[in-house]
Amino acid sequence: MVQIGKGNFSDWYINLILKANLIDYGPVKGTIVFKPYGYRIWEKLMFIVDNEIKQFGTQNVYFPIFIPESFLSKEKEHLEGFSPEVAVVTYAGGEELKEKLIVRPTSETIMYPIVAKWIKSYRDLPLIINQWTNVIRWEKRPFPFIRNTEFLWHEGHSLHSSHQSALELVFKVLAMYQKIYQDVLCIYGVSGRKSESEKFAGALATYTYEILMPDGKALQGCTSHDLGQNFAKVFNVRFQDKDKKLKYVWQTSWAITTRAIGALIGVHGDDYGLILPPKIAPYQVVVIPIYDKKHDKKIRAFIEDIQKELTQVYISVSSALFPRLSALDIYVDDSEHTPGYKFNEWELKGAPLRIEIGYQELKNQTLTCFRRDKRERFKLKLNELKNNLSNIFTEIEKNLFLRSKEFTEKNTYFVKDYQEFKKIMKTKRGFIQAYWCEKEECESKIKEETKATTRCLPLDIKNSRITNYKLRLTNYSSKGKCVYCGKKARNVWLFAQSY
Amino acid sequence: MVQIGKGNFSDWYINLILKANLIDYGPVKGTIVFKPYGYRIWEKLMFIVDNEIKQFGTQNVYFPIFIPESFLSKEKEHLEGFSPEVAVVTYAGGEELKEKLIVRPTSETIMYPIVAKWIKSYRDLPLIINQWTNVIRWEKRPFPFIRNTEFLWHEGHSLHSSHQSALELVFKVLAMYQKIYQDVLCIYGVSGRKSESEKFAGALATYTYEILMPDGKALQGCTSHDLGQNFAKVFNVRFQDKDKKLKYVWQTSWAITTRAIGALIGVHGDDYGLILPPKIAPYQVVVIPIYDKKHDKKIRAFIEDIQKELTQVYISVSSALFPRLSALDIYVDDSEHTPGYKFNEWELKGAPLRIEIGYQELKNQTLTCFRRDKRERFKLKLNELKNNLSNIFTEIEKNLFLRSKEFTEKNTYFVKDYQEFKKIMKTKRGFIQAYWCEKEECESKIKEETKATTRCLPLDIKNSRITNYKLRLTNYSSKGKCVYCGKKARNVWLFAQSY
Repeated sequence: MVQIGKGNFSDWYINLILKANLIDYGPVKGTIVFKPYGYRIWEKLMFIVDNEIKQFGTQNVYFPIFIPESFLSKEKEHLEGFSPEVAVVTYAGGEELKEKLIVRPTSETIMYPIVAKWIKSYRDLPLIINQWTNVIRWEKRPFPFIRNTEFLWHEGHSLHSSHQSALELVFKVLAMYQKIYQDVLCIYGVSGRKSESEKFAGALATYTYEILMPDGKALQGCTSHDLGQNFAKVFNVRFQDKDKKLKYVWQTSWAITTRAIGALIGVHGDDYGLILPPKIAPYQVVVIPIYDKKHDKKIRAFIEDIQKELTQVYISVSSALFPRLSALDIYVDDSEHTPGYKFNEWELKGAPLRIEIGYQELKNQTLTCFRRDKRERFKLKLNELKNNLSNIFTEIEKNLFLRSKEFTEKNTYFVKDYQEFKKIMKTKRGFIQAYWCEKEECESKIKEETKATTRCLPLDIKNSRITNYKLRLTNYSSKGKCVYCGKKARNVWLFAQSY
Repeated sequence: MVQIGKGNFSDWYINLILKANLIDYGPVKGTIVFKPYGYRIWEKLMFIVDNEIKQFGTQNVYFPIFIPESFLSKEKEHLEGFSPEVAVVTYAGGEELKEKLIVRPTSETIMYPIVAKWIKSYRDLPLIINQWTNVIRWEKRPFPFIRNTEFLWHEGHSLHSSHQSALELVFKVLAMYQKIYQDVLCIYGVSGRKSESEKFAGALATYTYEILMPDGKALQGCTSHDLGQNFAKVFNVRFQDKDKKLKYVWQTSWAITTRAIGALIGVHGDDYGLILPPKIAPYQVVVIPIYDKKHDKKIRAFIEDIQKELTQVYISVSSALFPRLSALDIYVDDSEHTPGYKFNEWELKGAPLRIEIGYQELKNQTLTCFRRDKRERFKLKLNELKNNLSNIFTEIEKNLFLRSKEFTEKNTYFVKDYQEFKKIMKTKRGFIQAYWCEKEECESKIKEETKATTRCLPLDIKNSRITNYKLRLTNYSSKGKCVYCGKKARNVWLFAQSY
């Protein structure tokens, strides 16, 4: 296995996802096949996200994948943002089509003209809908999970009678994503607002959770958009307010995608393979029998006991926002390989906890356990394990999250001098915190000269007041000088190279 | 509301699905938007099917939506079957594509060349995979849910080391679909094998569940295909058997689609709207408060009690194969409409059980209940309802299924004379059972002259022996004369006009 962090992260990553049976390549460039082990991670994440969003009244829907070209063209910024990336159907049913069809890159422009008919009065608001779909964005430089021509996601969309109500949802969703990243995926990141040039095409503002990957590049982990009334005005989405006046709705949209799996692989993985956090691992516990021919029957019976006992353990599979319990997934690897092969295999596949059962374990009625995150063996009686399983998983989660946090903090630099900025981006990369005057010119010069873009204006979700529609700066004073032009700058922004 | 069964079924159907908020039309001809109430039905069906298929070892996966044209062309029959219906992407990412991409109409041709790499030995078999996706088939005469340009489905695919093993799965799946239709959707139908001309393009044999709709037309409710080794040979899907020889795998594929919702609407609906079976209804219980201004607080408190008590009731949401329990979905309609409006609304939307709570109910501590299927009011104490809810739902299910069975039997005719055959198809339609010599010539003449096609060779799943790869005829002797040509015919087939 190639080592990480030595300039060959992408070799390590590609090698790992193929070996661990997460994906296969599709025949069309930039597409991937989710194999059972890889899809199961997505399935678990879907279950968690779906549960969370339904708690605040989201209803699932499904809109067609084909968007008439004229629909996409209605919002100008949106069209400009997406037109270089779309795939186009020009004939169907044996005939050339009169109007070309865009294969959805996102669904605002097909949803909103239709949703406009669903609402009449303020009583119909807020309306929060969501769909789980595939989307297509043609990628020039595809990278599995992180940049794919076709990927899977959920897209939430909401309509409100006021900007305040819309913003509350934007931040509720961002807080939910942050919780999921931190509590479920155990990945540290920085929440914040995108710059004008980096925001979603057609949005007033875009909020994000930015993750630092082992190669020092940033990954945008999710998005929550304040769409304002831009789309409402284009698609004439109006409601009658309490004062009987017809008004445009305020809208939001938000998404988390299969890219989250890319973050998971990159952030936690090590030279031995994947490390999967318990809430998202296809199997939390993998049991490996060590047969010796003499005691095989008894070993098998012992394993059956273990399975029976441990499937009675329920663990929290949701974020802390809306806790939900689920039965443990246990896998007994009874394949014909040697125990040593299986140890490597399940380290590669990142099973959080491995249990080895041979004659020694049978004789002493003790389980030899192996924690993947620390690569540490320990022994426990079955009952002790059963009673401590939740704690062990919590410890694994804490350990993974702390590691990710420490790595990020170690590789985050507060920089005042542009030469230092350039040097960091040229050598070690990482997150840079720097004052920026918020003029697009400086931003694009920095990008040109260092490949680093603004990732976000960091935001302390808990302590931010959203009533004034502005984000509070965290930790820094509002008097600084732009790292590029030296002129007055009020905010410290996060910069990094990105995928 | 338009009345059913008077020659205007399709007006009634379209009117109903729009009024009941199941769908909206998409901008592209033949596409529909699943609104929250409509999608929730699909979501519940997905949950049930997904649970069932995982019981026999199915693992979920995801394959790309774009199939290179050359892949689709590899299996000749398959290509001929699907090429008139496909949508084609010709440019993407701002450039014309070198190879055209087919938007998946089904996934055999993209899955199998890739899956070929996943299996090496007989130990890797059977491999059973499944995906939940959208698919595209260009429809000349679209009809919502029943024939859509884009629809949602699951597609299961399996690989086996023997034909016997493959066939066992084909019938296990067919039995599962039949159970779901009968126990969950409460829809009677006829299981059987498709004729050579009606089978899936590229299959050895296709099995189906055929449903009689109120207008006397048949609806194909699902399919389970015995693919034999056709695709395996085309895509070189081989394994090393126990005898060390390389052999082609035996394959199956199977699907149930959003068309099932069309069957649900058509079969159970009446002049007042939808009638949804409890296991699949978005809300099993809808509570309608009848406020009188004087006692509103107490009425509200009483309703809260009811909610609290009834959410403790768990009902079986799966078919009888693998029972699974789920909490009840209860909706309290607190909108500003009158009680009368709400009664009509929830009859239209087909909620299985309605509970009306006003001052009378409060005073007598009694609930006024309304069963949608029988349109019958009855009174019960809260505790009585709680204890009887499961029984009530079972009764509703039995009643709906029996109605559907009686309707089908009443409209099924055993016909020996072709003039009678023609007359029935011209006037009342329905299912016709008739001897057919199994020559394609007679089949196509019958189709030409009566619009009726062979629906299937009926099959008694429970009593059929599958070891000889042939289906036992049910009820009829194997000595008959073809209803068209009068020549010797061994089997009685089911005929009908279809969607």
